[in-house]
Parts: sequence; C-alpha cells; structure tokens
Amino acid sequence: MAETMENKDKKFVKEIADINDNFAQWYTDVVLKTELVDYGPVKGTMVIRPYGYAVWENIQREMDARFKAIGVKNAYFPLLIPMSFFTKEAEHVEGFAPEVAVVTHAGGAKLEEPLAIRPTSETIIGTMYAKWIQSYRDLPVLINQWCNVMRWEKTTRPFLRTSEFLWQEGHTVHATAEEAMEETMLMLAEYKKFAEEVLAIPVLCGKKTEKEKFAGAEATFGMEAMMIDGKSLQAGTSHYFGQNFSKAFEIKYLDKDGTLKYGYTSSWGTSTRMIGAVIMAHGDERGLVFPPKIAPVQVIIVPVAAHKGGVNEKCAELSEKLKAAGVRVETDDRDMSPGRKFNEWEMKGVPVRIEIGPRDIENGVCAICRRDTFGKAEVPLDRAIEKIKELLSEIQANMLEKSRARRDKKIVEAESLDGILKGVEGQNFVKAGWCGCRECEDKVKETAQATARIMCDEEGVPERCAICGKPAKHKVIFARAY
Amino acid sequence: MAETMENKDKKFVKEIADINDNFAQWYTDVVLKTELVDYGPVKGTMVIRPYGYAVWENIQREMDARFKAIGVKNAYFPLLIPMSFFTKEAEHVEGFAPEVAVVTHAGGAKLEEPLAIRPTSETIIGTMYAKWIQSYRDLPVLINQWCNVMRWEKTTRPFLRTSEFLWQEGHTVHATAEEAMEETMLMLAEYKKFAEEVLAIPVLCGKKTEKEKFAGAEATFGMEAMMIDGKSLQAGTSHYFGQNFSKAFEIKYLDKDGTLKYGYTSSWGTSTRMIGAVIMAHGDERGLVFPPKIAPVQVIIVPVAAHKGGVNEKCAELSEKLKAAGVRVETDDRDMSPGRKFNEWEMKGVPVRIEIGPRDIENGVCAICRRDTFGKAEVPLDRAIEKIKELLSEIQANMLEKSRARRDKKIVEAESLDGILKGVEGQNFVKAGWCGCRECEDKVKETAQATARIMCDEEGVPERCAICGKPAKHKVIFARAY
Repeated sequence: MAETMENKDKKFVKEIADINDNFAQWYTDVVLKTELVDYGPVKGTMVIRPYGYAVWENIQREMDARFKAIGVKNAYFPLLIPMSFFTKEAEHVEGFAPEVAVVTHAGGAKLEEPLAIRPTSETIIGTMYAKWIQSYRDLPVLINQWCNVMRWEKTTRPFLRTSEFLWQEGHTVHATAEEAMEETMLMLAEYKKFAEEVLAIPVLCGKKTEKEKFAGAEATFGMEAMMIDGKSLQAGTSHYFGQNFSKAFEIKYLDKDGTLKYGYTSSWGTSTRMIGAVIMAHGDERGLVFPPKIAPVQVIIVPVAAHKGGVNEKCAELSEKLKAAGVRVETDDRDMSPGRKFNEWEMKGVPVRIEIGPRDIENGVCAICRRDTFGKAEVPLDRAIEKIKELLSEIQANMLEKSRARRDKKIVEAESLDGILKGVEGQNFVKAGWCGCRECEDKVKETAQATARIMCDEEGVPERCAICGKPAKHKVIFARAY
Repeated sequence: MAETMENKDKKFVKEIADINDNFAQWYTDVVLKTELVDYGPVKGTMVIRPYGYAVWENIQREMDARFKAIGVKNAYFPLLIPMSFFTKEAEHVEGFAPEVAVVTHAGGAKLEEPLAIRPTSETIIGTMYAKWIQSYRDLPVLINQWCNVMRWEKTTRPFLRTSEFLWQEGHTVHATAEEAMEETMLMLAEYKKFAEEVLAIPVLCGKKTEKEKFAGAEATFGMEAMMIDGKSLQAGTSHYFGQNFSKAFEIKYLDKDGTLKYGYTSSWGTSTRMIGAVIMAHGDERGLVFPPKIAPVQVIIVPVAAHKGGVNEKCAELSEKLKAAGVRVETDDRDMSPGRKFNEWEMKGVPVRIEIGPRDIENGVCAICRRDTFGKAEVPLDRAIEKIKELLSEIQANMLEKSRARRDKKIVEAESLDGILKGVEGQNFVKAGWCGCRECEDKVKETAQATARIMCDEEGVPERCAICGKPAKHKVIFARAY
C-alpha cells in the first residue's frame, strides 16, 4: 500500500508510562488499561478479561490446528495429583514440590493423602500411560492437553508469572530414544515456526544448561524471545526424558522381539506467557501492537461525522463485507470524538483503522491507517476489502522483520565476565564461551544478573570460557530474563 | 438413501453387558471399552481420553459459536476462591461448602486463608464485576468461561458425576430484572436448541422447585433429557439471581437518572455430563451411537481384501475427498479381519461405515452402512461424497426423531402417589399435580425414589395434588434421575 500520509497524531493522550523511561510500569499500565487482564483476589492470580482471552483463543486455534496436522490428539487429565506420585522421580519432586498448592480437605473431611494441584502433568499422565500402553503397536502415543496449572510463585506479573496459568502440555511415548529425541526436536521446531509465523516474534532455540533444565529431564530445549528491553523471555520448552519417567512410572511395552521394554518419553509446553511475549516484543509508546493473526480485533472502523451523508450505513456495509471475508472487524459508533477513539484503539493494538466521513463517501474512498508504522493511505471503497486483506498480511510480515532486525542488532559477543556484564547492561543478548561448570554460570548470575538462556554450540565454540578463561566447551547466550 | 440390504451382522462379538439386562454395567463397559474415558488415580476423578475429548471439542466448538453469535464473550477467572467469598451469600455457602475441595498449603507454607477450588464461579466473578461495572453504559455484561470445576461427590460415574468436570459457565449482569430474566430464558432456549440440533436429544425445559433450585438463585430453569432407561438427566441449567448476588458482592451501576443501583444477574451452565446424556440417549446393544455433528469420527472406511485391485488407493482417494468436503473420516487399515473392525467401529458409534473391496471397484461402487438403523446400500463411487453428506444429515435428523418418539411414549400422567410410583417403575416420566409443599415432594422421593424434575404449569395445572389430594398449584414432571 502506498502510504501518502502520516498518521501520527502528535496530540495523543498519554495514559500509560513512558516505554523508554519505565518499561515495567508501561507493561503494567498497558495490560490493565487495555483490559487484557486484571489482578485476581488471591495474590499472584490473574483474571484474563475478554480482550485478553480472545488473544489466547486465537493462539489456541492456530496452534491446535498445527498439532492435529502432525497427529497429536487432545485429552484431559485430572487437576489433582496424589503427592506420592511426585516422589517417584527424584529430580522432579525436588524441582516442583516447593511450588505446589496442596488440597488437604475435601467434602468436609480431611483427606487421607494430600493432593497437589498439577504444576505440570508428567506424573499423572505417566501413570495412565503405564496402564494404556501394552505393545509396540500402541506406540507412539502423542497426546496434548489444554488446561490450567498452578505454581506458587513469590513475585508475579500478569501473563509472565502467575500462580495459575493456562497452557498446553504435550506428552509423548516412543519405542526408541531416537524417536523420542526426534519428537522433542520436532515440537521445538513447531514452536519456532509458530512464534515467527503467528506471533511475529523471531526466537532463538537451543539446549538448556543442566542448571536451567526441567526437573527430571535428560535434556531441555528452550525457545527464547528478545523483549524490547533486551531481556529474554522463555516462550516455550521441549523436554527429552529418556527413560527417566518411564522407569519411574513403569511405562513398558512388549516389543516385536517378545521382550518387555521401557518406553522413551518427551513433553513440551507453551502458555499464556506468550501473550506477555507479544506485548513486550511489539509494543510502543502508544501501547499494544498486535500481529494480525492473533489480534482480537483486526480492523476497527471509526465513522467521522457519523450523523451525516450515509456514513453509518457505509460503515455497516464495509463491516459486513469484511466479516464475510473472514476479517475480525468492529465498528466504534460510541458517542465520543474520533480522536479519543483513535487513541483508545491504538492503545489496544488494533492493526488497521478505517476512517470514513461524508467527504470520503462523496469521493468514494476511505482512509486506512496501520498501527505498526502509522502509515495512512486513501483507498477506493470498491477496493477496500482486497486492500485490507493485503495490508493485514503485510503488517504480519513487517512486524516479524522489524523484530528480527531489532533483535539482530542486539546480539553481541563477549570474552570476559565484564564483557558479559556490559553486554546485558546495554540490553543485549551476549554470546560467550563457557567451560561448562556451574560455578561460572553462578558467577554470571551474581555479577550480571544474567542467566544462560540456551547453548548454541553449532555456531562454533569459542576457545576460552569468558568467565574463568579455561577451555570452553560450549557457546552460550547469556541474558537477563523474565 | 435407498437401503437395499440389511447390515445387522448376527455374529457380532458381544464385549459389553446387555443393555436391557444391566444398563448401568452396559454404560460402564461402553465408556471404558470404547476408550472415551478412564478412571483417574484419585477417587471420583476421570481421565477424558482422546476419543472422548474429541466429543467435547465438537460440543465446545458448536456451542461456543452459538454463544458468540449472540454477543457472549469468553474470559478466564481464577480456579481458587477465598473461602470467605462463599459466606457472602447465605444460601450459596450452605449449598456448596459441603462439596468443596480446600487448599490449605501452598509454596511450602500454610495459607492465611484457606482457598476453595471453584465448584462454580458466581462469587469470584461477582467480585470482579463489582470492580468493572461503573455505569449503565457498561451493561449488559455477558461473559462465559470454559473451565474445570470441582465438587466432592460421594458416588461418582464417568461423565455423569465426577469430582472434577469440565463445563462452561456464563455470568451476566443487567440493568433491570426483566432483562436478566430474559437472558435466563434466552440461554435456556439456546441450550434446548443445542441439545436437539446438535446432540439429537429432545429435552423438556421448565422451572425447578425450591428444593431443586441452585443454591442462591431466585429461580432455576432446567433442561431434562430422558435416557433409554426412562431416567432423567439434567443436561443444563439457567439461573435467575435477581439482586441476590449483586447485593452480596456490591455489583452496582450509576443509572441514567444519576442514582446508584444494584444490577440483576444470571448464570447458566452445561458440562461434560452432556457426553453421558448422548451415550445414554442413543446407545444400543452394540455400544455407542453418535449423532454425526459431535461424532469424533463421522465416517470409517474399511478396506476389504486390501492387498488386491487397488483397494488401498481407492480408500485413500475417497478419504481425501471426504476430508476436503469437511467430513471427519478415518481409514482402518490395520491387519485384522473386516468383521472385527466392523464390531469395533460399531461399538465406537461411528455414524457411517464405508466398505470397499476389489469387486466393488470393478463395479464402480462402495457399500455404505449406517450405524443408527443398520441400513446398508450400494452407492456409485462417483456419487459417494454427495451421498455421504446427505446421509450424515439424515442420520442426525433421524436420531432426534427416534429419541423423541421413544420419549413421548414414555411420558405418563398420574393422580396418586401410587400412580407416580408405578409410572417411574415403568421407566416413565410422570406428570402430576402438586400442592407445592416440600413434604409431598419428599414423600415422592421416599416412596418412588423420584424427584420433581421441572414444573410445566403452562400445560394446565391439575385440580388436585397427586400426593396429598389438596388443591394443586403446579404440574410437575417426576422422574428418577442421574
């Protein structure tokens, strides 16, 4: 679209903190004022309001279709897990027990065994798999569930870290280690595609260090997204368990050769955190900027001088046509000034705004404004639907490229602890050599408040550990993180 | 479709209890053997397996689209509710406190206030509404959530009554009593349409007695479905709260006239119980019979003598065409006899089976068998897609009519307690006059193990109470119930 006008209204009313001055306050202001979310009555909980839940529904629909296309089926496992299940896998209980919420009473009586509200479902799903799987013919098992989980957290923020959150957790069982590892990597690749194609967020994927891996996993692979402030947000993980859980839960199958063998398992998850990632990857001084694929409202129509010259009728006509073309559109016919409406819908991150006034109708045109670049163009009314559909694709692509360019400029290399500190202080991801020892990893945390996000050895391992100077075994991306 | 053949294989292998001899055992056998569901590790919980969850997904998708079409938006409210919230509405706490599961510890420490796992969300949603609603401009609020809830039950059965279940709960706020009542009745009507059009289950709707109404409601309206054994299953409810909850939770708005007023609220819900209703309304001696609109698999293709004459290729071609036509189709190419496959898919309730063998291909035909009537017909391959789509609609309509005819024959009238007893013993719904007093209602329960399902005064109230002989105030449907 040839944008001939500049849409950036200098007089916009600032209802939110300055994104450059105080990013944390900007985030809080934006999520509350756009009515994405509210604080729940219990500390650390959130209420996902209709505008925020619509984002989650769009994410779910897109992701669920992708899962189904590769043979994953959905199921639902119980919320409550006997505490004893956790103790079957030693690392797992150590990792999750401290965060668990526990039901001790129910139906007016004390329970014989306390029950955990699932923080993750490996243990209960493993128990069921052990019952269901008999033979190699039953493998692979590829099941996902969409549900709520609970992890009691000390510091919480809406979408980013709350005691209860919504997620999907996939749990698979395979006959061989190779197949389970293949699945682990396949799902990581699916997540990466999803983040880029749907959320318009470029991500870096790789193996986690021992310190950062999931409790009970042989290996965890993470997907890291850079936020506007240069911090990293882990937006999804995929775990390879080897036989850890199949041995703990007796997931065995009779193989073709007539012998009983333990299966190999994987699990992988993404959550409502992704909404936080979208907010902090794309937002600007005016508020939210949604990629069209997940925007609750893709197009907002604002009538100008609505009482005159058939404006309302033309808006309704356009809205119907857009709906028929599969566009999520709303018309704002409230009795208030167009300027206030522009402000509000910009803050709410709607990708495209259409303005129609009496003069536009006379000229057979409407004005189309895009949220991502503030570009504005006049478009003939009879070509508006086609133009808007093109524009939505263009915005989706542009947002990814813009994020990618921003991120790529903010990945630096360091050869010393001081270099790592300077790098993260400059709001960068820092690549550095690492000897592989826990002490060096902890030192980065203490000194730079940064953690090892992923390893990217495939890029070539530096000669020396940036922290201790000994020979490096890995190339690591260090960053401060949400 | 002209069904020229009879498909009822006399040799079918009976893996499930006799539906006429032992309906309860038949139900348990069917839900477990078709892999709809399994028992969870904690007493009273269920695991909804992929085949069962697909039914729920189909129900959700259909119902959710209907909600959205009438302006309802989805949101998500927290699972955990402070116990003190329940005590704000006196009847509500009395009704739900005994069934609640309570979290007393979390994050390794004892909580200051115990938290209930939501048995229903009026209290927490009311708390948020009080915060969100300021002015008449904010009304009506029409919000729904899809979530899990928990009610600690003593006797449980998969789908019908489990401690945890999945449901949707809509919660609305209105400026006037009339609007809130209109909404209550609108949603009841929506549920009825859904039950009939989607589940193919005819339902009776009406007001509940004081004894049977929701704890805290001014009035509850229920939707009752007759199961094959003549018992009733409450498949959905819609509640009018008047100002009970708005006063308890301070849901107030500033009206046009400048005064602060309490809103009027409603709530309405349906759950995974509906899956139980479908099983027990349509099943037969061979197992499940799914209405096409919610069947996880609508068409199963079974190749006969698959190794010969391009059978597999033809099956794959047909499957692709059906998928493209929006039909949920699977091909069973397992290495076992077609007869065993027929048995299994009949038990699993798949509406249509297609058989293709080498001779069929030579003749350019396939055999199409319907699950509901066991009718079988030969259809030209080049018209198969069209025929199958027609047939799916026909089956959907036929199942509703068949259920309706069966039910209508089993509604009787009674003029005495003995008449009520005989009626329900004969597996009927029994219509009778009722004076309106609790004693008579309790007497029916004691004597006939039946409860007042709904009132249907609009049909004309009988002169006398069938129980005590005093003047009747209502006409009631008594039935045994799930």
